[in-house]
Amino acid sequence: MKIDYELLTDLYQLTMAQGYWESGQNTTQACFHMYFRDYPFKGGFAIACGMAQLADLIDSFTFTDEDVAYLASLDAPGGGKLFNPAFLERLRSFRLNVNIDAVVEGTVVFPHEPLVRVTGPIVDCQLIETALLNCVNFQTLVATKAARVCLAAQAPVAEFGLRRAQGAAGGVWASRAAVVGGCASTSNVLAGQLFDVPVSGTHAHSWVMSFPDELTAFRAYAQAFPRNCVLLVDTYDVEQGIDHAITVGLEMRERGERLAGIRIDSGDLAWLAKMARGKLDAAGLQDCSIVLSNDLDEYTIQSIRDEGAQVGSWGVGTKLACAYDQPTLGGVYKLSATKAPGQSAWEDRLKISESAAKLTTPGVLDIRRYYYSDGRIAGDMVYDVYSEVDEREVIVDPCDDLRMKKLAGKSFETLLQPLARDGVTVLKPSLRSARAAQARAQAGLATLDESQKRILNPHTYPVGLEYGLFERRRDLVVRLKGIA
Amino acid sequence: MKIDYELLTDLYQLTMAQGYWESGQNTTQACFHMYFRDYPFKGGFAIACGMAQLADLIDSFTFTDEDVAYLASLDAPGGGKLFNPAFLERLRSFRLNVNIDAVVEGTVVFPHEPLVRVTGPIVDCQLIETALLNCVNFQTLVATKAARVCLAAQAPVAEFGLRRAQGAAGGVWASRAAVVGGCASTSNVLAGQLFDVPVSGTHAHSWVMSFPDELTAFRAYAQAFPRNCVLLVDTYDVEQGIDHAITVGLEMRERGERLAGIRIDSGDLAWLAKMARGKLDAAGLQDCSIVLSNDLDEYTIQSIRDEGAQVGSWGVGTKLACAYDQPTLGGVYKLSATKAPGQSAWEDRLKISESAAKLTTPGVLDIRRYYYSDGRIAGDMVYDVYSEVDEREVIVDPCDDLRMKKLAGKSFETLLQPLARDGVTVLKPSLRSARAAQARAQAGLATLDESQKRILNPHTYPVGLEYGLFERRRDLVVRLKGIA
Repeated sequence: MKIDYELLTDLYQLTMAQGYWESGQNTTQACFHMYFRDYPFKGGFAIACGMAQLADLIDSFTFTDEDVAYLASLDAPGGGKLFNPAFLERLRSFRLNVNIDAVVEGTVVFPHEPLVRVTGPIVDCQLIETALLNCVNFQTLVATKAARVCLAAQAPVAEFGLRRAQGAAGGVWASRAAVVGGCASTSNVLAGQLFDVPVSGTHAHSWVMSFPDELTAFRAYAQAFPRNCVLLVDTYDVEQGIDHAITVGLEMRERGERLAGIRIDSGDLAWLAKMARGKLDAAGLQDCSIVLSNDLDEYTIQSIRDEGAQVGSWGVGTKLACAYDQPTLGGVYKLSATKAPGQSAWEDRLKISESAAKLTTPGVLDIRRYYYSDGRIAGDMVYDVYSEVDEREVIVDPCDDLRMKKLAGKSFETLLQPLARDGVTVLKPSLRSARAAQARAQAGLATLDESQKRILNPHTYPVGLEYGLFERRRDLVVRLKGIA
Repeated sequence: MKIDYELLTDLYQLTMAQGYWESGQNTTQACFHMYFRDYPFKGGFAIACGMAQLADLIDSFTFTDEDVAYLASLDAPGGGKLFNPAFLERLRSFRLNVNIDAVVEGTVVFPHEPLVRVTGPIVDCQLIETALLNCVNFQTLVATKAARVCLAAQAPVAEFGLRRAQGAAGGVWASRAAVVGGCASTSNVLAGQLFDVPVSGTHAHSWVMSFPDELTAFRAYAQAFPRNCVLLVDTYDVEQGIDHAITVGLEMRERGERLAGIRIDSGDLAWLAKMARGKLDAAGLQDCSIVLSNDLDEYTIQSIRDEGAQVGSWGVGTKLACAYDQPTLGGVYKLSATKAPGQSAWEDRLKISESAAKLTTPGVLDIRRYYYSDGRIAGDMVYDVYSEVDEREVIVDPCDDLRMKKLAGKSFETLLQPLARDGVTVLKPSLRSARAAQARAQAGLATLDESQKRILNPHTYPVGLEYGLFERRRDLVVRLKGIA
């Protein structure tokens, strides 16, 4: 599934690009950061995802003749053509010249810290903004949702939201991100092919309906798939469906085969699962697993488990693939520093807003993640790579300067890793793998305190600006506001 | 942006396909319908969309060698390979052999009526299910959201949700569907190129931040784009931004140019818009339009207009492209009839559920739309094309058999149109155009009563099953339940 990232953008990136060239600003170097401001799903963490597609973006970013012809056809609202031929000629030979540093996929991340840093000519930085946000926003959101669902499930989760997902790539990226977040498999075959993630699935209600009766349908399925037989028991009547599945399960056992499971897709799932377990056990089919599905999410799964239902695995669709209760991450991409030709040092840039959460952070940033000696994470510091970190190693909450924490003496690692240099992807193949990212997410979640993984009202992890950076930001606000 | 629709599917469609072949069911003819059960956004209508992509799906549906090699690599959970070589060999030469009838894009539609009817070998019908739902569910959802937003706006709406959309195709399809639903333009350049929809956009906050000061940034933009100049005034301070824009607007007028507008993207939009209008008018810039944006939807737009703000156009992003308050339509694709080899007539198929809304409708269905003599629509009848319509022309609500309506004597049209015959698309090029679909949606909305277009608590339009079909369905439930 090839995506034309060079045109997967907002028109204003291209009008600005022409403007930068015409005003001589195109030689200005810029630094942008992508970050989000609020915990998704009111949770306690997020799982970074989408950086492999970001690498694809860099690798395939060229304006074709067709692209240029399309742009040349656009009219300006006030008459004439929107773009100048000279600008379009430049696009034809345009090659990205950015450096990108990003957290590695699967990393546990938090609000207000840079997930991606882009530096390079301001035009290049802007031309990739929209596609970059599209890649990282959605996949980070779904990976996070999946991690929450899997924490609640405590058993394998299969993702199958493609039919309700937001478009083809929405579905395919959702399936990949779901696996990164912890899902055992997806129903999405194209995602399996593209990303080497496990695929799973057996049959639908229509299989049962297409046969004269349910028992015949179950027997035919067991015949065709003796090593992948999960029977869907709720087409007509769940209790009768379980009885039919037991009949077929016992027949399979006589043939030396095994009924792997039954799936219940409607009704009161907790009640039905307990009833089904009783019937299966009584029939001697203790090894037949129960699969539940039907509009599940982390909340319904937790409730079903709280009632004591023994569930072998879960199928989660719409509410996972679409991150139903919060369908976007809301991540932003903000200019934080510029360097005009001849300037040797970066100059801070700031966007002021009425709300503290929307104030940007200046500088060229990275994240230091500090650890307690037992391996749990202690706090994240957003710092400027070109400034000395104050020796007290204090972080200040970007939205509340009375909340601060001293991290001196603890071990730390920095989180941003090179993804591209001079427009060429340098991301190692091992860092593009969804399965490896899944393992990384699991390891990262293990460094969180249980209280930070709670589904409802989790404990908030300390993330802040390095003390000196915080003071620099405040001084800049005061100066731009004309207060001092 | 090429999409591999043949693998854009749930794995169980392929396992069922193998099962159908092995059990000899593959020669059975099936009839499926795609429909949704609930009004999206608790509104009073939906706008059908996605049928052009459905035609693309039919046109490009072939299993490549790479596809087959991928499927051959899959293991069964219980050991061995999941698929038989003989089945995979069949896939290699597989050609879709379905007939598809669908409502035309842009048609106003309602719950419980078939938007798409697929007939053909059961294997073929199932293999396209997931991709079909993915195409039609999401795009119908966004077209509907866009129609609601545009009804509230009563002025041009530009869609710019790509950065927050669910993946690349999620964004591209959302932009197309937004135009079908009524948006004047999109910021999404790739959607513009692919679907010939109008694109729009000027500059971002970063443009302003990259210059030494706001006034210089505005002047540079006006210089570069004298015929497409909308200045974003809220980077530092809105009131000062408006003053700077007025300065540049007056300079443009002296050069014989025109400041087209200013955009406000934060703060209290209603209050700021009124303040801006006052300042612009006082400066003699009555022809400078005000553009508002910032997390808008139909509710906030209506509220801003209710306060009397004069808004020239609106920019709507996240909440439109992601249909934020309801991110999926929830449409389903249900088997309704089969015809075994040698059978001459279709045999009814029904899925029973505890809830009336989830009970399926049997038969081979179409929609009759009845009209009052003044052109307003009077009611929709879902009927079986192979059964005589009862002469009273009565419809019965599928979820409440006490609600019925007599439609005899009114004129009607039928809504399903051929989209594919024997696996070949027959959809006319004019029916693939997003702009034509937009015009059709506008004409359709004009046939609704105002009360049906209300944003909150709209009047419910009568949709029901033809009386004979309703009775047939009830008899079938009674029989399958073993009650009679």
